[in-house]
Amino acid sequence: MSSWRLGDLAERLGAELAGNPDLRIRNIRPLDEAGSEDLSFLHNRKYIAKAKLSEAGAVIVADAGLLPGRNLLIAPEPYLLLARALELIYPRPSETEGVHPSAVVAEDVGLGAGVSVGPQAVIGPGSIIGARTHIGAGCVLGRMVEVGEDCLLHPRIVIEDGCRIGNRCILQGGVVIGGDGFGYASVDGVHHKVPQVGIVVLEDDVELGANVCVDRATLGETRIGRGVKVDNLVQIAHNVSVGPGSILVSQVGIAGSTQLGAYVVMGGQAGAAGHLKIGNGAQISAKTGVFKDLDAGALVSGIPARPRREWVRAQAGLARLEKMRKRIDEIERQLEHMKEEA
Amino acid sequence: MSSWRLGDLAERLGAELAGNPDLRIRNIRPLDEAGSEDLSFLHNRKYIAKAKLSEAGAVIVADAGLLPGRNLLIAPEPYLLLARALELIYPRPSETEGVHPSAVVAEDVGLGAGVSVGPQAVIGPGSIIGARTHIGAGCVLGRMVEVGEDCLLHPRIVIEDGCRIGNRCILQGGVVIGGDGFGYASVDGVHHKVPQVGIVVLEDDVELGANVCVDRATLGETRIGRGVKVDNLVQIAHNVSVGPGSILVSQVGIAGSTQLGAYVVMGGQAGAAGHLKIGNGAQISAKTGVFKDLDAGALVSGIPARPRREWVRAQAGLARLEKMRKRIDEIERQLEHMKEEA
Amino acid sequence: MSSWRLGDLAERLGAELAGNPDLRIRNIRPLDEAGSEDLSFLHNRKYIAKAKLSEAGAVIVADAGLLPGRNLLIAPEPYLLLARALELIYPRPSETEGVHPSAVVAEDVGLGAGVSVGPQAVIGPGSIIGARTHIGAGCVLGRMVEVGEDCLLHPRIVIEDGCRIGNRCILQGGVVIGGDGFGYASVDGVHHKVPQVGIVVLEDDVELGANVCVDRATLGETRIGRGVKVDNLVQIAHNVSVGPGSILVSQVGIAGSTQLGAYVVMGGQAGAAGHLKIGNGAQISAKTGVFKDLDAGALVSGIPARPRREWVRAQAGLARLEKMRKRIDEIERQLEHMKEEA
Repeated sequence: MSSWRLGDLAERLGAELAGNPDLRIRNIRPLDEAGSEDLSFLHNRKYIAKAKLSEAGAVIVADAGLLPGRNLLIAPEPYLLLARALELIYPRPSETEGVHPSAVVAEDVGLGAGVSVGPQAVIGPGSIIGARTHIGAGCVLGRMVEVGEDCLLHPRIVIEDGCRIGNRCILQGGVVIGGDGFGYASVDGVHHKVPQVGIVVLEDDVELGANVCVDRATLGETRIGRGVKVDNLVQIAHNVSVGPGSILVSQVGIAGSTQLGAYVVMGGQAGAAGHLKIGNGAQISAKTGVFKDLDAGALVSGIPARPRREWVRAQAGLARLEKMRKRIDEIERQLEHMKEEA
Repeated sequence: MSSWRLGDLAERLGAELAGNPDLRIRNIRPLDEAGSEDLSFLHNRKYIAKAKLSEAGAVIVADAGLLPGRNLLIAPEPYLLLARALELIYPRPSETEGVHPSAVVAEDVGLGAGVSVGPQAVIGPGSIIGARTHIGAGCVLGRMVEVGEDCLLHPRIVIEDGCRIGNRCILQGGVVIGGDGFGYASVDGVHHKVPQVGIVVLEDDVELGANVCVDRATLGETRIGRGVKVDNLVQIAHNVSVGPGSILVSQVGIAGSTQLGAYVVMGGQAGAAGHLKIGNGAQISAKTGVFKDLDAGALVSGIPARPRREWVRAQAGLARLEKMRKRIDEIERQLEHMKEEA
Repeated sequence: MSSWRLGDLAERLGAELAGNPDLRIRNIRPLDEAGSEDLSFLHNRKYIAKAKLSEAGAVIVADAGLLPGRNLLIAPEPYLLLARALELIYPRPSETEGVHPSAVVAEDVGLGAGVSVGPQAVIGPGSIIGARTHIGAGCVLGRMVEVGEDCLLHPRIVIEDGCRIGNRCILQGGVVIGGDGFGYASVDGVHHKVPQVGIVVLEDDVELGANVCVDRATLGETRIGRGVKVDNLVQIAHNVSVGPGSILVSQVGIAGSTQLGAYVVMGGQAGAAGHLKIGNGAQISAKTGVFKDLDAGALVSGIPARPRREWVRAQAGLARLEKMRKRIDEIERQLEHMKEEA
């Protein structure tokens, strides 16, 4: 195990240093697990008490005043500094450049400088792989696939014919890009398959989680915008477009032709019906079912989706239904009584 | 890029022609993207205005009267005609017949005429692959697996021992057929595995989406009926049977031993509990949770599922709960007032 | 097909025998399908009538008095006896010991006695595979992966660098263990990836269903406790811990850092938000959305989760909302009338 001098870390990370620059750091650990040779982090003020009790040798923090007398790396965005520190202290092992002898790469495939192709991978004719991209073990890329530069494809990914991946994309294991969209012409009880001849386009800096499915368009493109981050087991149907910077949490499903604006957030297990427009910055709670268009900036919850406040009130009301019914019973009793008296 | 004479297209597709038979068609594009060498389509009257403005060279349509003076391919089912036109103009590239040298196929496997087996695929002993079927790159078929004729297995599919696939089935990438059903005998805090010794049977013309899971039966069969279409990431548990012509949209889950009739439709993210009977033609909305048997033709929504109309009314009522509470408050005030006056 | 003498079966399974020990048993079948050479089972008293009508040669049962005059295997836990009988009569075919020539196994991998590695599998440097474990065709294990003894890895599983699997674990096809957790530092509209440098640990006797995803921790471990059983397509996020003996039914999702106690049960398509504590033995209905901590033994349903009884009452109330509204209308009419009369 190598170690880092705290002063060198500060310099490399562009952080301000407080305390002992000669401290040796070996690992990054959470506040309650860190010891004297560990760097830890405080990115949520909720944990100040914990930070004060922590035995961490040094702490990443936004404001030196929060932890007086400690060894600190100070930065306005401590969580981002943590990300950088993790990259530095735990670098991804480098892949062996070149094509593994067990891989099957068509003769005319274009491989950029520094590309690595793992064991048992398959790359079909006419495909192009950008410089420094890694194609993981067991990946299958079809014909005429384009993958940009500096991408990381984890093992056992499928990218079907003609699909295009931007630069610096990260795809986790088991992803399937370019499966056929779900389209049938149903006549007299027979569902005739509508060939899906479009493609999938991932713009730059997209990340897709494990076993995510993105279907090819019927015609044209299914498009995932720049910087979109998608968690595991998400379904993105044919002809969907997801605007830049959007976040799709695990097990979300988006039906065909729906268009998400920029910076939309969908919580876990939420779903959106087909042919909808979801405005920029809309936030859709976990488990919500969206069946209508949403304005930019909408905050919605529930099945069907409604404004979050309204949903919270309705749920509270649900819990009081029994009480309401009893009040109505009592009112009817009183009215009956009044009528008898009259 | 090759092109088609419109008159020849009409003849090959069995469509009626209106307009110029000598027009050259190169591509099929949506109404708003199509140009003078493109064929487009109008299958929903909602888009008539768009069709009139379209610059498409020719349009597929059900009724010539909708677009007078245009070049048209006329057919009673325009969406089906589109499907046929897509097949014709964008044929799937043919696969190289035979077994790729990197594939591992057991000696006794029966391969029909014209079968193709992709790179890195594995086929276990005793299996039989029907004529003209394509086994995609990286697929793993176990022992004694049967696949019918004219099937298309996309890359990286698993079919476990003894499972049987009908003719003309299409399986998208990442499908797992014949994983163990989820069954345990729980005694004194230990969940003992109940071996799952049944199989999965897919009848003819079934399509399964990417990363779909269909579990083998405990005993007997898990059965997917003729012509069933299943979207991505769907879960079908052990001993389920899905009747012919049913449609399961993305991320649906069906628990063990539940029986779906013919032409059942389950919307995205819907689920059905185990040991249920869902009648023919039942329609289950997206996100619905079915916990009881459903009659044939039932239309249901909600968690738990209830008749759709009732659910719509209940949801509308939820939005008015606050108002109801205020009305009760006001009634109580008035009663109080009346009593004081009396 | 071999056959078993009923008396020998009783002895091997440790069951009490009633009836003819010389009966030959060839298969195990459900009550309504079993014939004179079949063993069947009665583990739910609901099916006594069916059992009496069954033509099964012999029946597994808890109490001999339930089926007088029949050939019986009697045991206090008949479902467990069924599991044992299935193991005995339908043994899993043994795998060929050793490494298939098409597999790519790094030189320094430690392989225990009796290990089998299937075709096209990949095992990275520094990994260790315990005795008698089977690595299925097309699996990809990264660097420094540890798999215990007597494990069964079905085809096409991914286990990323450094993850550790206990003894007697069963992983179904398409599982992805150790994909990156979903963590970003979002600054000025850019989602910077937070490297996920922790691992996944599966304790002994864990089973994971097909296409399940378990993400590696940001730091430290994502941990699945001893004897946990996980159904298909479940999502387990970074830094989650699942207590021993828990059951996660298909398509469940658990968000980051949530801790489940021992023997928690989550029904199909249920979800839990991040950073929660779910107490021992909590039972979460299918489709429930848990957004707050749960006490030990809690029984909850609904979105958001509430005590099951309360939820059942609220759902019943929802169905009566229309009626409540009409009662309020009528009360207001009467009050109006009374005021007019006054």
